[in-house]
Amino acid sequence: MTAFAVTPRDVYRAQQTLAGRVQRTPLVPAFGLSRELGADISLKLECFQDTMAFKQRGATNAVANLPADKRQRGVVAVSTGNHGRGVAYAAKRLGIRAVIVMSRLVPENKIRAIRDLGAEVQIHGDSQDEAFERQAELEAQEGLTPVLPFDHPDVIAGQGTIALEMLADRPDLDTLLVPLSGGGLIAGMAIAAKAIAPDIKVVGISMDHGAAMAASLRAGKPVAVTEGPSLADSLGGGIGLDNAHTFAMTRELVDDVVLVSEAEIAAAMRLIYREERVVAEGACTVGIAALMTGRVAAEGAIGVPITGRNIDPELFRRVLAEEPVETLLGAS
Amino acid sequence: MTAFAVTPRDVYRAQQTLAGRVQRTPLVPAFGLSRELGADISLKLECFQDTMAFKQRGATNAVANLPADKRQRGVVAVSTGNHGRGVAYAAKRLGIRAVIVMSRLVPENKIRAIRDLGAEVQIHGDSQDEAFERQAELEAQEGLTPVLPFDHPDVIAGQGTIALEMLADRPDLDTLLVPLSGGGLIAGMAIAAKAIAPDIKVVGISMDHGAAMAASLRAGKPVAVTEGPSLADSLGGGIGLDNAHTFAMTRELVDDVVLVSEAEIAAAMRLIYREERVVAEGACTVGIAALMTGRVAAEGAIGVPITGRNIDPELFRRVLAEEPVETLLGAS
Repeated sequence: MTAFAVTPRDVYRAQQTLAGRVQRTPLVPAFGLSRELGADISLKLECFQDTMAFKQRGATNAVANLPADKRQRGVVAVSTGNHGRGVAYAAKRLGIRAVIVMSRLVPENKIRAIRDLGAEVQIHGDSQDEAFERQAELEAQEGLTPVLPFDHPDVIAGQGTIALEMLADRPDLDTLLVPLSGGGLIAGMAIAAKAIAPDIKVVGISMDHGAAMAASLRAGKPVAVTEGPSLADSLGGGIGLDNAHTFAMTRELVDDVVLVSEAEIAAAMRLIYREERVVAEGACTVGIAALMTGRVAAEGAIGVPITGRNIDPELFRRVLAEEPVETLLGAS
Repeated sequence: MTAFAVTPRDVYRAQQTLAGRVQRTPLVPAFGLSRELGADISLKLECFQDTMAFKQRGATNAVANLPADKRQRGVVAVSTGNHGRGVAYAAKRLGIRAVIVMSRLVPENKIRAIRDLGAEVQIHGDSQDEAFERQAELEAQEGLTPVLPFDHPDVIAGQGTIALEMLADRPDLDTLLVPLSGGGLIAGMAIAAKAIAPDIKVVGISMDHGAAMAASLRAGKPVAVTEGPSLADSLGGGIGLDNAHTFAMTRELVDDVVLVSEAEIAAAMRLIYREERVVAEGACTVGIAALMTGRVAAEGAIGVPITGRNIDPELFRRVLAEEPVETLLGAS
């Protein structure tokens, strides 16, 4: 195995760092889903982190590992979503300053959600690019440390603790179905899981349009893709043309990458709700969608992290009402 | 304090018995609910036990504590709901026989749910009374031990472990808002919580019609009540005119009992969904309903066990769609 900047030992270190700082979420047997899909499925309910998503793990590990001088000055992130919430909350829990930069286009409810978690929000410019310029300014002028969303060893190691907990609870897991976006989650989970169970199969699942990591793996190098609206919007975003860690780790450690359509994601959201009464973001229902379509075989003990519940409640209600995907995406 | 058959030490014993046999569920800060209600609310997500409800704790403790000869013969319970599921699953995990007796009136999906959990279902007679007669037969003829749903020291102690975990995670909790039905949950939680925090306030909440414990407390002795359909149907059922434990414990240990209407329960289901994206049975939203109506003051740190998610998914969807309570209850 190639040497990566993240080792299984780093994931164990992260586990110690995170103890008492993030939820140790339950892995529950999904009896209804298993019956419907003829499979043995367990769900890791990572959606019940305090911030509603797994991103809190990597952010907390990254912030906690900063040297004292950097902690004293604080951190900065550009994110309107789960990463921003994770950084905001990690910093609050650790008692340090966090600035989350957003463009003027970000809706009020997302700004409020970050403020609820105790962070300082700076509204800057009319695009994500301008927000990143402001982050660079804050780094240069105020000494704030940017916390990256996925391509950083501490973030990868933090997310990897999910696999440690899953295997602690069910050492017999044969396959992990992991949502694939920037690759921080799957890289961390794979390096940890394969150290414990070298024969475990790790499958990454993305939506079938605008999935940057899947396109990069096909191209053999990080590439940019055109994005469109998706029920799995948390899986959007590039992997960075200068990707330092997650591209190589995903290429080497992940056994298979599977793509699913928007309609399949919506159907999986409904099935998970109906059988398990769990409200899951589209981004984390892709694994169940892959099973439903037969693109992943229903063999052995299958573990699926349900990574977030931070979905617009009205959009979810409309998914349950079986509105067509085109209508749902037009309005989301 | 009067001596009861359940002591705080028994709840600690139950905690040890249950370790690795039930989920250690997360206590999550409810940021959205707290903002909306001007309160500091944490939710104990007990709905993520494997059987979808907290009843698994008491059932597992009761079954695990049986002497070897009784374990060898097996257990029996009369229940179509969360208690039946809890007994079925506890017995399966412990490798012993379980028979769940139901009347012919029980719908197929409830029978299937119990079978999914590995128990033997016996359909007998046309009423709950006849099912209890069959239970007595099985006890006499096959030596099966009946597992009671709430009025048994082992069951009470098992449910009490929820309070131990809540205070382990947030030792500063000031108030517990606990769904009140047969009293097993609130008796166990109160005896444990008050041993740790004598000044903690324990409030029981029931629906405003057909709540047997509330009526019994008013009458000063166990009484029967007339029941009607309720969104909080898990809170229905009598407390037993020969109640041996939970009536006295509830009377002595519970600080206040509050009643809420069906419309208030429905509104609480919607608010918990909207702010926290949690699908909760009506029976466990009564505490939030009491806060929403001001019948419980939004003071101090408030802990609320969300005790079950075993609600009909179509009924929940209709609650979200704001169908009137009369229509919902007519169809449920």
